[in-house]
Amino acid sequence: MHRWDTVAIIGVGLIGGSIGLAVRQRKLARQVIGIGRSEASLAKAKAHGCITETTTSIAKGVEKADIVVVCTPVASIHEHVAAAAAHCPADCLLTDAGSTKGEIVSKVEAALGGNSPRGLRFIGSHPLAGSEQNGPEAARADLFEGRVVVLTPTDVTAAAAVEGVEQFWLALGANVVHMSPSDHDEALAATSHLPHLVASALAAATPDELLPLTAGGWQDTTRVAAGDAELWRQILLSNRAGTLKALADFEKVLSRLRVALETGDGPLLAALLAEGKRRRDALGS
Amino acid sequence: MHRWDTVAIIGVGLIGGSIGLAVRQRKLARQVIGIGRSEASLAKAKAHGCITETTTSIAKGVEKADIVVVCTPVASIHEHVAAAAAHCPADCLLTDAGSTKGEIVSKVEAALGGNSPRGLRFIGSHPLAGSEQNGPEAARADLFEGRVVVLTPTDVTAAAAVEGVEQFWLALGANVVHMSPSDHDEALAATSHLPHLVASALAAATPDELLPLTAGGWQDTTRVAAGDAELWRQILLSNRAGTLKALADFEKVLSRLRVALETGDGPLLAALLAEGKRRRDALGS
Repeated sequence: MHRWDTVAIIGVGLIGGSIGLAVRQRKLARQVIGIGRSEASLAKAKAHGCITETTTSIAKGVEKADIVVVCTPVASIHEHVAAAAAHCPADCLLTDAGSTKGEIVSKVEAALGGNSPRGLRFIGSHPLAGSEQNGPEAARADLFEGRVVVLTPTDVTAAAAVEGVEQFWLALGANVVHMSPSDHDEALAATSHLPHLVASALAAATPDELLPLTAGGWQDTTRVAAGDAELWRQILLSNRAGTLKALADFEKVLSRLRVALETGDGPLLAALLAEGKRRRDALGS
Repeated sequence: MHRWDTVAIIGVGLIGGSIGLAVRQRKLARQVIGIGRSEASLAKAKAHGCITETTTSIAKGVEKADIVVVCTPVASIHEHVAAAAAHCPADCLLTDAGSTKGEIVSKVEAALGGNSPRGLRFIGSHPLAGSEQNGPEAARADLFEGRVVVLTPTDVTAAAAVEGVEQFWLALGANVVHMSPSDHDEALAATSHLPHLVASALAAATPDELLPLTAGGWQDTTRVAAGDAELWRQILLSNRAGTLKALADFEKVLSRLRVALETGDGPLLAALLAEGKRRRDALGS
Protein backbone atom coordinates (compact mmCIF):
# COMPACT_ATOMS: atom_id res chain seq x y z
CA MET A 1 0.00 0.00 0.00
CA HIS A 2 2.70 2.52 0.98
CA ARG A 3 5.60 3.13 -1.36
CA TRP A 4 8.07 2.97 1.54
CA ASP A 5 7.65 1.47 5.00
CA THR A 6 9.93 3.82 6.92
CA VAL A 7 11.33 7.23 5.97
CA ALA A 8 13.87 8.70 8.41
CA ILE A 9 14.62 12.42 8.45
CA ILE A 10 17.69 13.71 10.28
CA GLY A 11 17.13 17.38 11.12
CA VAL A 12 13.45 18.34 11.15
CA GLY A 13 13.43 22.07 10.37
CA LEU A 14 11.76 23.84 7.46
CA ILE A 15 13.08 21.44 4.79
CA GLY A 16 13.06 18.21 6.82
CA GLY A 17 9.65 19.08 8.25
CA SER A 18 8.23 19.82 4.81
CA ILE A 19 9.54 16.48 3.51
CA GLY A 20 7.81 14.73 6.40
CA LEU A 21 4.56 16.61 5.87
CA ALA A 22 4.60 15.84 2.14
CA VAL A 23 5.34 12.14 2.70
CA ARG A 24 2.51 11.90 5.20
CA GLN A 25 -0.02 13.88 3.20
CA ARG A 26 0.72 11.81 0.11
CA LYS A 27 0.63 8.60 2.20
CA LEU A 28 3.99 7.52 0.82
CA ALA A 29 5.26 5.76 3.96
CA ARG A 30 3.88 3.88 6.94
CA GLN A 31 6.00 5.86 9.36
CA VAL A 32 8.19 8.97 9.26
CA ILE A 33 10.87 9.01 11.93
CA GLY A 34 12.20 12.42 12.92
CA ILE A 35 15.73 12.41 14.30
CA GLY A 36 17.12 15.49 16.04
CA ARG A 37 19.21 16.76 18.93
CA SER A 38 16.35 18.38 20.82
CA GLU A 39 13.28 16.51 22.10
CA ALA A 40 11.45 19.83 22.32
CA SER A 41 12.03 20.63 18.67
CA LEU A 42 11.05 17.09 17.62
CA ALA A 43 7.86 17.40 19.67
CA LYS A 44 7.00 20.60 17.78
CA ALA A 45 7.59 18.85 14.47
CA LYS A 46 5.38 15.94 15.54
CA ALA A 47 2.65 18.31 16.76
CA HIS A 48 2.80 20.05 13.39
CA GLY A 49 2.24 16.67 11.68
CA CYS A 50 5.68 16.43 10.06
CA ILE A 51 6.71 13.09 11.63
CA THR A 52 5.10 10.11 13.32
CA GLU A 53 7.99 9.03 15.60
CA THR A 54 10.80 10.91 17.27
CA THR A 55 14.24 9.99 18.56
CA THR A 56 17.49 11.72 19.38
CA SER A 57 19.44 8.60 18.37
CA ILE A 58 20.54 8.32 14.76
CA ALA A 59 21.35 4.62 15.34
CA LYS A 60 17.82 3.85 16.55
CA GLY A 61 16.09 6.18 14.12
CA VAL A 62 17.56 4.64 10.98
CA GLU A 63 17.66 0.96 11.95
CA LYS A 64 14.55 0.06 9.90
CA ALA A 65 14.66 2.89 7.37
CA ASP A 66 14.16 2.42 3.64
CA ILE A 67 15.44 5.91 2.97
CA VAL A 68 17.24 8.45 5.13
CA VAL A 69 17.18 12.14 4.23
CA VAL A 70 19.74 14.29 6.05
CA CYS A 71 18.44 17.87 6.40
CA THR A 72 20.92 19.26 8.90
CA PRO A 73 23.10 22.36 8.32
CA VAL A 74 25.62 21.98 5.51
CA ALA A 75 28.72 21.61 7.67
CA SER A 76 27.41 18.58 9.57
CA ILE A 77 25.68 16.67 6.76
CA HIS A 78 28.61 14.35 5.97
CA GLU A 79 28.88 13.23 9.60
CA HIS A 80 25.17 12.53 9.82
CA VAL A 81 25.16 10.55 6.57
CA ALA A 82 28.12 8.49 7.82
CA ALA A 83 26.39 7.87 11.15
CA ALA A 84 23.20 6.80 9.38
CA ALA A 85 25.16 4.51 7.03
CA ALA A 86 26.71 2.75 10.01
CA HIS A 87 23.32 1.76 11.44
CA CYS A 88 20.75 1.51 8.65
CA PRO A 89 19.80 -1.68 6.76
CA ALA A 90 22.07 -2.73 3.86
CA ASP A 91 19.57 -1.75 1.17
CA CYS A 92 18.59 1.60 2.72
CA LEU A 93 19.13 4.63 0.48
CA LEU A 94 20.79 7.80 1.76
CA THR A 95 20.51 11.36 0.56
CA ASP A 96 20.63 14.92 1.88
CA ALA A 97 19.08 18.34 1.21
CA GLY A 98 22.15 20.55 1.47
CA SER A 99 22.49 23.78 -0.53
CA THR A 100 26.04 22.89 -1.60
CA LYS A 101 27.20 19.59 -3.03
CA GLY A 102 30.91 19.38 -3.91
CA GLU A 103 32.34 19.31 -0.41
CA ILE A 104 29.49 17.25 1.06
CA VAL A 105 29.55 14.58 -1.65
CA SER A 106 33.31 14.17 -1.58
CA LYS A 107 33.38 13.92 2.22
CA VAL A 108 30.51 11.41 2.25
CA GLU A 109 32.11 9.33 -0.48
CA ALA A 110 35.40 9.32 1.39
CA ALA A 111 33.59 8.18 4.54
CA LEU A 112 31.46 5.46 2.89
CA GLY A 113 33.82 4.29 0.15
CA GLY A 114 35.71 1.03 -0.02
CA ASN A 115 33.04 -1.49 0.93
CA SER A 116 30.59 -1.03 -1.93
CA PRO A 117 31.34 -3.08 -5.05
CA ARG A 118 28.02 -2.08 -6.67
CA GLY A 119 28.46 1.59 -5.91
CA LEU A 120 27.53 3.84 -3.02
CA ARG A 121 23.94 4.03 -1.86
CA PHE A 122 24.30 7.76 -1.14
CA ILE A 123 23.44 10.44 -3.67
CA GLY A 124 23.47 14.19 -3.02
CA SER A 125 20.20 16.11 -3.40
CA HIS A 126 19.43 19.82 -3.35
CA PRO A 127 15.76 20.83 -3.40
CA LEU A 128 15.55 24.41 -4.72
CA ALA A 129 12.91 25.40 -2.22
CA GLY A 130 12.83 27.09 1.12
CA SER A 131 12.60 30.61 2.41
CA GLU A 132 14.12 32.95 4.94
CA GLN A 133 11.98 31.18 7.55
CA ASN A 134 13.18 28.36 9.78
CA GLY A 135 11.82 25.57 11.90
CA PRO A 136 9.18 22.87 11.52
CA GLU A 137 6.40 25.39 12.21
CA ALA A 138 7.15 26.93 8.80
CA ALA A 139 7.01 23.51 7.06
CA ARG A 140 4.59 23.09 4.16
CA ALA A 141 3.46 19.87 2.48
CA ASP A 142 3.54 21.57 -0.93
CA LEU A 143 7.02 23.06 -0.57
CA PHE A 144 8.48 20.84 -3.31
CA GLU A 145 5.56 20.80 -5.74
CA GLY A 146 6.76 21.95 -9.13
CA ARG A 147 10.16 22.88 -7.72
CA VAL A 148 13.48 21.65 -9.04
CA VAL A 149 15.52 19.11 -7.08
CA VAL A 150 19.09 18.73 -8.30
CA LEU A 151 20.60 15.23 -7.89
CA THR A 152 24.39 14.97 -8.08
CA PRO A 153 25.42 11.41 -8.96
CA THR A 154 29.11 10.62 -9.41
CA ASP A 155 31.13 7.71 -10.87
CA VAL A 156 30.72 5.75 -7.66
CA THR A 157 26.98 6.30 -7.07
CA ALA A 158 24.95 3.06 -7.21
CA ALA A 159 22.32 3.01 -9.97
CA ALA A 160 19.79 1.97 -7.30
CA ALA A 161 20.49 5.17 -5.34
CA VAL A 162 20.02 7.39 -8.41
CA GLU A 163 16.78 5.64 -9.29
CA GLY A 164 15.38 5.36 -5.77
CA VAL A 165 16.13 8.88 -4.61
CA GLU A 166 14.82 10.32 -7.88
CA GLN A 167 11.55 8.41 -7.33
CA PHE A 168 11.39 9.81 -3.81
CA TRP A 169 11.55 13.46 -4.93
CA LEU A 170 9.21 12.86 -7.86
CA ALA A 171 6.73 11.38 -5.40
CA LEU A 172 6.85 14.67 -3.46
CA GLY A 173 5.86 16.55 -6.62
CA ALA A 174 9.30 17.88 -7.57
CA ASN A 175 11.04 17.98 -10.93
CA VAL A 176 14.44 16.27 -10.88
CA VAL A 177 17.56 17.29 -12.79
CA HIS A 178 21.00 15.65 -12.66
CA MET A 179 24.27 17.57 -12.47
CA SER A 180 27.78 16.86 -11.25
CA PRO A 181 28.50 18.22 -7.75
CA SER A 182 30.90 20.83 -9.18
CA ASP A 183 28.50 21.96 -11.90
CA HIS A 184 25.80 22.25 -9.22
CA ASP A 185 27.99 24.42 -7.03
CA GLU A 186 29.01 26.71 -9.87
CA ALA A 187 25.39 27.17 -10.97
CA LEU A 188 23.91 27.62 -7.51
CA ALA A 189 26.62 30.12 -6.63
CA ALA A 190 25.11 32.39 -9.31
CA THR A 191 21.45 31.67 -8.64
CA SER A 192 21.39 31.41 -4.84
CA HIS A 193 24.63 31.93 -2.92
CA LEU A 194 25.63 35.20 -4.61
CA PRO A 195 22.09 36.67 -4.29
CA HIS A 196 22.28 35.96 -0.57
CA LEU A 197 25.67 37.65 -0.27
CA VAL A 198 24.45 40.69 -2.24
CA ALA A 199 21.19 40.98 -0.29
CA SER A 200 23.10 40.79 2.96
CA ALA A 201 25.59 43.46 1.85
CA LEU A 202 22.73 45.70 0.72
CA ALA A 203 20.95 45.36 4.05
CA ALA A 204 24.14 45.89 6.05
CA ALA A 205 25.06 48.97 3.97
CA THR A 206 21.74 50.68 4.75
CA PRO A 207 22.05 53.01 7.77
CA ASP A 208 19.54 52.23 10.53
CA GLU A 209 18.10 55.74 10.43
CA LEU A 210 17.11 55.28 6.78
CA LEU A 211 15.08 52.10 7.34
CA PRO A 212 11.82 54.11 7.67
CA LEU A 213 12.46 55.37 4.13
CA THR A 214 12.59 51.90 2.58
CA ALA A 215 9.70 50.55 0.54
CA GLY A 216 8.84 47.43 -1.46
CA GLY A 217 11.98 47.53 -3.59
CA TRP A 218 14.41 47.43 -0.67
CA GLN A 219 12.25 44.86 1.12
CA ASP A 220 12.22 42.47 -1.84
CA THR A 221 15.88 42.96 -2.69
CA THR A 222 17.06 42.26 0.87
CA ARG A 223 14.46 39.64 1.93
CA VAL A 224 16.81 36.64 1.95
CA ALA A 225 19.23 38.51 4.20
CA ALA A 226 16.82 37.59 7.03
CA GLY A 227 17.90 33.96 6.62
CA ASP A 228 19.75 32.25 9.48
CA ALA A 229 23.26 33.73 9.53
CA GLU A 230 24.94 30.54 10.79
CA LEU A 231 23.31 28.34 8.12
CA TRP A 232 24.42 30.78 5.43
CA ARG A 233 27.91 31.09 6.83
CA GLN A 234 28.24 27.33 6.39
CA ILE A 235 26.77 27.39 2.87
CA LEU A 236 29.04 30.20 1.67
CA LEU A 237 32.17 28.65 3.18
CA SER A 238 31.25 25.28 1.67
CA ASN A 239 31.06 26.88 -1.80
CA ARG A 240 33.79 29.50 -1.56
CA ALA A 241 35.23 28.99 -5.04
CA GLY A 242 31.87 29.03 -6.78
CA THR A 243 30.59 32.04 -4.85
CA LEU A 244 33.79 34.02 -5.43
CA LYS A 245 33.59 33.34 -9.17
CA ALA A 246 29.92 34.43 -9.29
CA LEU A 247 30.81 37.49 -7.23
CA ALA A 248 33.53 38.45 -9.70
CA ASP A 249 31.04 38.16 -12.58
CA PHE A 250 28.54 40.32 -10.68
CA GLU A 251 31.18 42.93 -9.83
CA LYS A 252 32.03 43.23 -13.54
CA VAL A 253 28.42 44.08 -14.42
CA LEU A 254 28.08 46.41 -11.44
CA SER A 255 31.27 48.14 -12.46
CA ARG A 256 29.87 48.76 -15.96
CA LEU A 257 26.77 50.28 -14.35
CA ARG A 258 29.00 52.46 -12.16
CA VAL A 259 30.96 53.72 -15.15
CA ALA A 260 27.73 54.48 -17.02
CA LEU A 261 26.56 56.54 -14.03
CA GLU A 262 29.93 58.26 -13.50
CA THR A 263 30.11 59.33 -17.12
CA GLY A 264 26.38 60.06 -17.41
CA ASP A 265 26.21 57.64 -20.33
CA GLY A 266 22.44 57.33 -20.74
CA PRO A 267 22.43 54.87 -23.67
CA LEU A 268 24.85 52.49 -21.89
CA LEU A 269 22.85 52.73 -18.66
CA ALA A 270 19.63 52.04 -20.56
CA ALA A 271 21.20 49.03 -22.29
CA LEU A 272 22.43 47.53 -19.01
CA LEU A 273 19.09 48.08 -17.27
CA ALA A 274 17.28 46.54 -20.25
CA GLU A 275 19.55 43.48 -20.06
CA GLY A 276 18.71 43.02 -16.36
CA LYS A 277 15.02 43.46 -17.11
CA ARG A 278 15.16 40.90 -19.94
CA ARG A 279 16.62 38.23 -17.64
CA ARG A 280 14.16 39.05 -14.86
CA ASP A 281 11.14 39.11 -17.18
CA ALA A 282 12.09 35.65 -18.47
CA LEU A 283 11.08 34.26 -15.07
CA GLY A 284 7.85 36.10 -14.26
CA SER A 285 6.96 37.34 -10.81
CA MET B 1 -18.94 68.46 0.52
CA HIS B 2 -15.77 67.57 -1.38
CA ARG B 3 -12.45 68.70 -0.04
CA TRP B 4 -11.36 69.85 -3.51
CA ASP B 5 -13.45 70.66 -6.55
CA THR B 6 -10.96 69.63 -9.24
CA VAL B 7 -7.83 67.50 -9.02
CA ALA B 8 -5.71 67.32 -12.18
CA ILE B 9 -3.24 64.49 -12.74
CA ILE B 10 -0.61 64.79 -15.46
CA GLY B 11 0.58 61.28 -16.40
CA VAL B 12 -1.96 58.62 -15.46
CA GLY B 13 0.14 55.44 -15.02
CA LEU B 14 0.49 53.31 -11.89
CA ILE B 15 1.11 56.26 -9.54
CA GLY B 16 -1.11 58.84 -11.22
CA GLY B 17 -3.86 56.27 -11.68
CA SER B 18 -3.65 55.19 -8.04
CA ILE B 19 -3.90 58.81 -6.90
CA GLY B 20 -7.03 59.23 -9.02
CA LEU B 21 -8.57 56.00 -7.74
CA ALA B 22 -7.86 56.97 -4.14
CA VAL B 23 -9.28 60.50 -4.59
CA ARG B 24 -12.43 59.09 -6.15
CA GLN B 25 -12.90 56.25 -3.66
CA ARG B 26 -12.48 58.65 -0.76
CA LYS B 27 -14.78 61.20 -2.47
CA LEU B 28 -12.17 63.93 -2.02
CA ALA B 29 -12.93 65.83 -5.24
CA ARG B 30 -15.87 66.52 -7.54
CA GLN B 31 -13.82 65.70 -10.62
CA VAL B 32 -10.44 64.15 -11.41
CA ILE B 33 -9.00 65.26 -14.72
CA GLY B 34 -6.49 62.92 -16.32
CA ILE B 35 -4.00 64.61 -18.63
CA GLY B 36 -1.82 62.53 -20.95
CA ARG B 37 -0.31 62.27 -24.40
CA SER B 38 -2.35 59.28 -25.52
CA GLU B 39 -6.16 59.25 -25.71
CA ALA B 40 -6.03 55.44 -25.68
CA SER B 41 -4.10 55.34 -22.41
CA LEU B 42 -6.41 57.96 -20.85
CA ALA B 43 -9.43 55.91 -21.94
CA LYS B 44 -7.96 52.89 -20.15
CA ALA B 45 -7.42 54.94 -17.00
CA LYS B 46 -11.00 56.24 -17.17
CA ALA B 47 -12.38 52.74 -17.73
CA HIS B 48 -10.40 51.56 -14.69
CA GLY B 49 -12.10 54.32 -12.64
CA CYS B 50 -8.96 56.40 -12.05
CA ILE B 51 -10.24 59.66 -13.57
CA THR B 52 -13.55 61.28 -14.48
CA GLU B 53 -12.39 63.50 -17.40
CA THR B 54 -9.62 63.17 -19.96
CA THR B 55 -7.67 65.61 -22.10
CA THR B 56 -4.37 65.69 -23.94
CA SER B 57 -4.05 69.44 -23.29
CA ILE B 58 -2.28 70.51 -20.11
CA ALA B 59 -3.66 74.06 -20.59
CA LYS B 60 -7.26 72.85 -20.69
CA GLY B 61 -6.81 70.17 -18.07
CA VAL B 62 -5.49 72.47 -15.34
CA GLU B 63 -7.55 75.62 -16.01
CA LYS B 64 -9.95 74.98 -13.10
CA ALA B 65 -7.72 72.79 -10.94
CA ASP B 66 -7.30 73.23 -7.19
CA ILE B 67 -4.29 70.93 -7.19
CA VAL B 68 -2.15 69.49 -10.00
CA VAL B 69 -0.08 66.35 -9.41
CA VAL B 70 2.57 65.65 -12.05
CA CYS B 71 3.22 61.90 -12.31
CA THR B 72 5.24 61.74 -15.52
CA PRO B 73 8.73 60.24 -15.83
CA VAL B 74 11.40 62.07 -13.83
CA ALA B 75 13.13 63.77 -16.76
CA SER B 76 9.98 65.57 -17.95
CA ILE B 77 8.41 66.56 -14.61
CA HIS B 78 9.85 70.10 -14.50
CA GLU B 79 8.49 70.90 -17.96
CA HIS B 80 5.04 69.62 -17.05
CA VAL B 81 4.96 71.57 -13.78
CA ALA B 82 5.97 74.75 -15.65
CA ALA B 83 3.29 74.15 -18.28
CA ALA B 84 0.67 73.60 -15.60
CA ALA B 85 1.78 76.73 -13.71
CA ALA B 86 1.29 78.79 -16.86
CA HIS B 87 -2.37 77.82 -17.20
CA CYS B 88 -3.79 76.95 -13.78
CA PRO B 89 -5.63 79.35 -11.42
CA ALA B 90 -3.51 81.63 -9.25
CA ASP B 91 -4.27 79.73 -6.03
CA CYS B 92 -3.83 76.23 -7.51
CA LEU B 93 -1.20 74.08 -5.77
CA LEU B 94 1.38 72.11 -7.73
CA THR B 95 3.29 68.98 -6.79
CA ASP B 96 4.81 65.88 -8.38
CA ALA B 97 5.46 62.23 -7.57
CA GLY B 98 9.01 61.84 -8.88
CA SER B 99 11.49 59.40 -7.32
CA THR B 100 14.23 62.05 -7.22
CA LYS B 101 13.91 65.58 -5.93
CA GLY B 102 17.09 67.70 -6.12
CA GLU B 103 17.23 68.22 -9.87
CA ILE B 104 13.44 68.44 -10.29
CA VAL B 105 12.90 70.96 -7.51
CA SER B 106 15.75 73.23 -8.61
CA LYS B 107 14.58 73.19 -12.25
CA VAL B 108 10.98 73.87 -11.26
CA GLU B 109 12.00 76.69 -8.92
CA ALA B 110 14.15 78.23 -11.65
CA ALA B 111 11.21 78.03 -14.05
CA LEU B 112 8.58 79.42 -11.64
CA GLY B 113 10.67 81.84 -9.61
CA GLY B 114 10.57 85.64 -9.74
CA ASN B 115 6.85 86.32 -9.63
CA SER B 116 5.93 84.92 -6.22
CA PRO B 117 6.38 87.32 -3.30
CA ARG B 118 4.66 84.91 -0.90
CA GLY B 119 6.66 81.91 -2.05
CA LEU B 120 6.23 79.28 -4.76
CA ARG B 121 3.06 77.22 -4.85
CA PHE B 122 5.04 74.13 -5.95
CA ILE B 123 6.43 71.58 -3.50
CA GLY B 124 8.16 68.34 -4.44
CA SER B 125 6.57 65.04 -3.30
CA HIS B 126 7.80 61.47 -3.43
CA PRO B 127 5.33 58.75 -2.42
CA LEU B 128 7.36 55.68 -1.38
CA ALA B 129 4.98 53.31 -3.10
CA GLY B 130 4.82 51.54 -6.41
CA SER B 131 6.04 48.32 -7.85
CA GLU B 132 7.73 46.86 -10.88
CA GLN B 133 4.36 47.09 -12.64
CA ASN B 134 3.28 49.94 -14.89
CA GLY B 135 0.15 51.51 -16.31
CA PRO B 136 -3.26 52.53 -14.96
CA GLU B 137 -4.46 48.91 -15.05
CA ALA B 138 -2.10 48.23 -12.13
CA ALA B 139 -3.43 51.22 -10.14
CA ARG B 140 -4.79 50.59 -6.65
CA ALA B 141 -6.85 52.90 -4.47
CA ASP B 142 -4.95 51.75 -1.37
CA LEU B 143 -1.47 52.20 -2.83
CA PHE B 144 -0.62 55.05 -0.45
CA GLU B 145 -2.33 53.82 2.71
CA GLY B 146 0.18 53.70 5.53
CA ARG B 147 3.03 54.50 3.14
CA VAL B 148 5.51 57.35 3.54
CA VAL B 149 5.32 60.40 1.30
CA VAL B 150 8.38 62.64 1.47
CA LEU B 151 7.73 66.36 0.94
CA THR B 152 10.73 68.52 0.06
CA PRO B 153 10.03 72.18 0.91
CA THR B 154 12.77 74.76 0.35
CA ASP B 155 13.35 78.36 1.40
CA VAL B 156 11.11 79.60 -1.38
CA THR B 157 8.18 77.21 -0.93
CA ALA B 158 4.94 78.96 0.05
CA ALA B 159 3.53 77.89 3.42
CA ALA B 160 0.19 77.29 1.70
CA ALA B 161 1.82 74.76 -0.63
CA VAL B 162 3.44 72.85 2.24
CA GLU B 163 0.17 72.78 4.15
CA GLY B 164 -2.14 72.04 1.21
CA VAL B 165 -0.07 69.30 -0.40
CA GLU B 166 0.52 67.65 2.98
CA GLN B 167 -3.25 67.62 3.55
CA PHE B 168 -3.69 66.05 0.11
CA TRP B 169 -1.38 63.09 0.83
CA LEU B 170 -2.76 62.65 4.35
CA ALA B 171 -6.24 62.47 2.82
CA LEU B 172 -5.01 59.55 0.66
CA GLY B 173 -3.98 57.68 3.81
CA ALA B 174 -0.23 58.36 3.62
CA ASN B 175 2.20 59.41 6.35
CA VAL B 176 4.09 62.58 5.46
CA VAL B 177 7.69 63.44 6.32
CA HIS B 178 9.62 66.58 5.35
CA MET B 179 13.21 66.57 4.09
CA SER B 180 15.36 68.85 1.98
CA PRO B 181 15.64 67.78 -1.68
CA SER B 182 19.31 66.87 -1.22
CA ASP B 183 18.71 64.89 1.99
CA HIS B 184 15.91 63.07 0.18
CA ASP B 185 18.15 62.15 -2.72
CA GLU B 186 20.95 60.92 -0.49
CA ALA B 187 18.55 58.78 1.56
CA LEU B 188 16.58 57.37 -1.35
CA ALA B 189 19.81 56.52 -3.16
CA ALA B 190 20.50 54.02 -0.36
CA THR B 191 16.94 52.73 0.10
CA SER B 192 15.69 52.62 -3.49
CA HIS B 193 18.05 53.67 -6.28
CA LEU B 194 20.99 51.49 -5.21
CA PRO B 195 18.76 48.42 -4.63
CA HIS B 196 17.49 48.82 -8.19
CA LEU B 197 21.03 49.05 -9.57
CA VAL B 198 22.12 46.00 -7.59
CA ALA B 199 19.07 43.95 -8.54
CA SER B 200 19.60 44.81 -12.18
CA ALA B 201 23.29 43.86 -12.04
CA LEU B 202 22.43 40.58 -10.33
CA ALA B 203 19.83 39.70 -12.96
CA ALA B 204 22.14 40.70 -15.83
CA ALA B 205 25.03 38.68 -14.35
CA THR B 206 22.98 35.47 -14.28
CA PRO B 207 23.54 33.39 -17.44
CA ASP B 208 20.31 32.56 -19.30
CA GLU B 209 20.96 28.83 -19.06
CA LEU B 210 20.95 29.02 -15.26
CA LEU B 211 17.54 30.68 -14.96
CA PRO B 212 15.80 27.28 -14.51
CA LEU B 213 17.98 26.80 -11.40
CA THR B 214 16.77 29.97 -9.70
CA ALA B 215 14.31 29.83 -6.82
CA GLY B 216 12.61 32.24 -4.42
CA GLY B 217 15.83 33.91 -3.29
CA TRP B 218 16.91 34.98 -6.76
CA GLN B 219 13.36 35.98 -7.63
CA ASP B 220 12.97 38.24 -4.60
CA THR B 221 16.43 39.73 -4.89
CA THR B 222 16.02 40.65 -8.57
CA ARG B 223 12.29 41.51 -8.62
CA VAL B 224 12.67 45.27 -9.07
CA ALA B 225 14.94 44.72 -12.09
CA ALA B 226 11.71 44.06 -14.01
CA GLY B 227 10.85 47.75 -13.63
CA ASP B 228 10.67 49.93 -16.75
CA ALA B 229 14.28 50.44 -17.93
CA GLU B 230 13.68 53.94 -19.36
CA LEU B 231 12.00 55.21 -16.17
CA TRP B 232 14.90 53.89 -14.11
CA ARG B 233 17.52 55.27 -16.47
CA GLN B 234 16.00 58.71 -15.83
CA ILE B 235 15.83 58.20 -12.06
CA LEU B 236 19.44 57.02 -11.80
CA LEU B 237 20.78 59.82 -14.01
CA SER B 238 18.74 62.36 -12.03
CA ASN B 239 20.40 61.18 -8.80
CA ARG B 240 23.88 60.28 -10.01
CA ALA B 241 25.79 61.72 -7.07
CA GLY B 242 23.57 60.11 -4.44
CA THR B 243 23.49 56.75 -6.16
CA LEU B 244 27.27 56.69 -6.68
CA LYS B 245 27.83 57.47 -3.00
CA ALA B 246 25.43 54.70 -1.92
CA LEU B 247 27.11 52.35 -4.40
CA ALA B 248 30.52 53.11 -2.90
CA ASP B 249 29.17 52.32 0.60
CA PHE B 250 27.69 49.05 -0.68
CA GLU B 251 30.90 48.08 -2.45
CA LYS B 252 32.81 48.54 0.81
CA VAL B 253 30.55 46.06 2.62
CA LEU B 254 30.60 43.65 -0.30
CA SER B 255 34.37 43.86 -0.38
CA ARG B 256 34.56 42.89 3.30
CA LEU B 257 32.34 39.89 2.54
CA ARG B 258 34.62 38.96 -0.37
CA VAL B 259 37.71 39.12 1.82
CA ALA B 260 36.01 36.98 4.48
CA LEU B 261 35.24 34.38 1.79
CA GLU B 262 38.69 34.55 0.19
CA THR B 263 40.42 34.03 3.50
CA GLY B 264 37.84 31.54 4.79
CA ASP B 265 37.32 33.76 7.83
CA GLY B 266 34.22 32.15 9.34
CA PRO B 267 33.79 34.50 12.31
CA LEU B 268 34.05 37.63 10.11
CA LEU B 269 31.63 36.14 7.58
CA ALA B 270 29.19 35.27 10.38
CA ALA B 271 29.44 38.78 11.83
CA LEU B 272 28.75 40.43 8.45
CA LEU B 273 25.81 38.13 7.72
CA ALA B 274 24.42 38.78 11.20
CA GLU B 275 24.65 42.53 10.60
CA GLY B 276 22.67 42.22 7.35
CA LYS B 277 20.11 40.04 9.11
CA ARG B 278 19.74 42.51 11.95
CA ARG B 279 18.93 45.37 9.55
CA ARG B 280 16.53 43.20 7.55
CA ASP B 281 14.78 41.82 10.63
CA ALA B 282 14.17 45.37 11.84
CA LEU B 283 11.67 45.79 9.02
CA GLY B 284 9.76 42.51 8.99
CA SER B 285 8.69 40.70 5.83
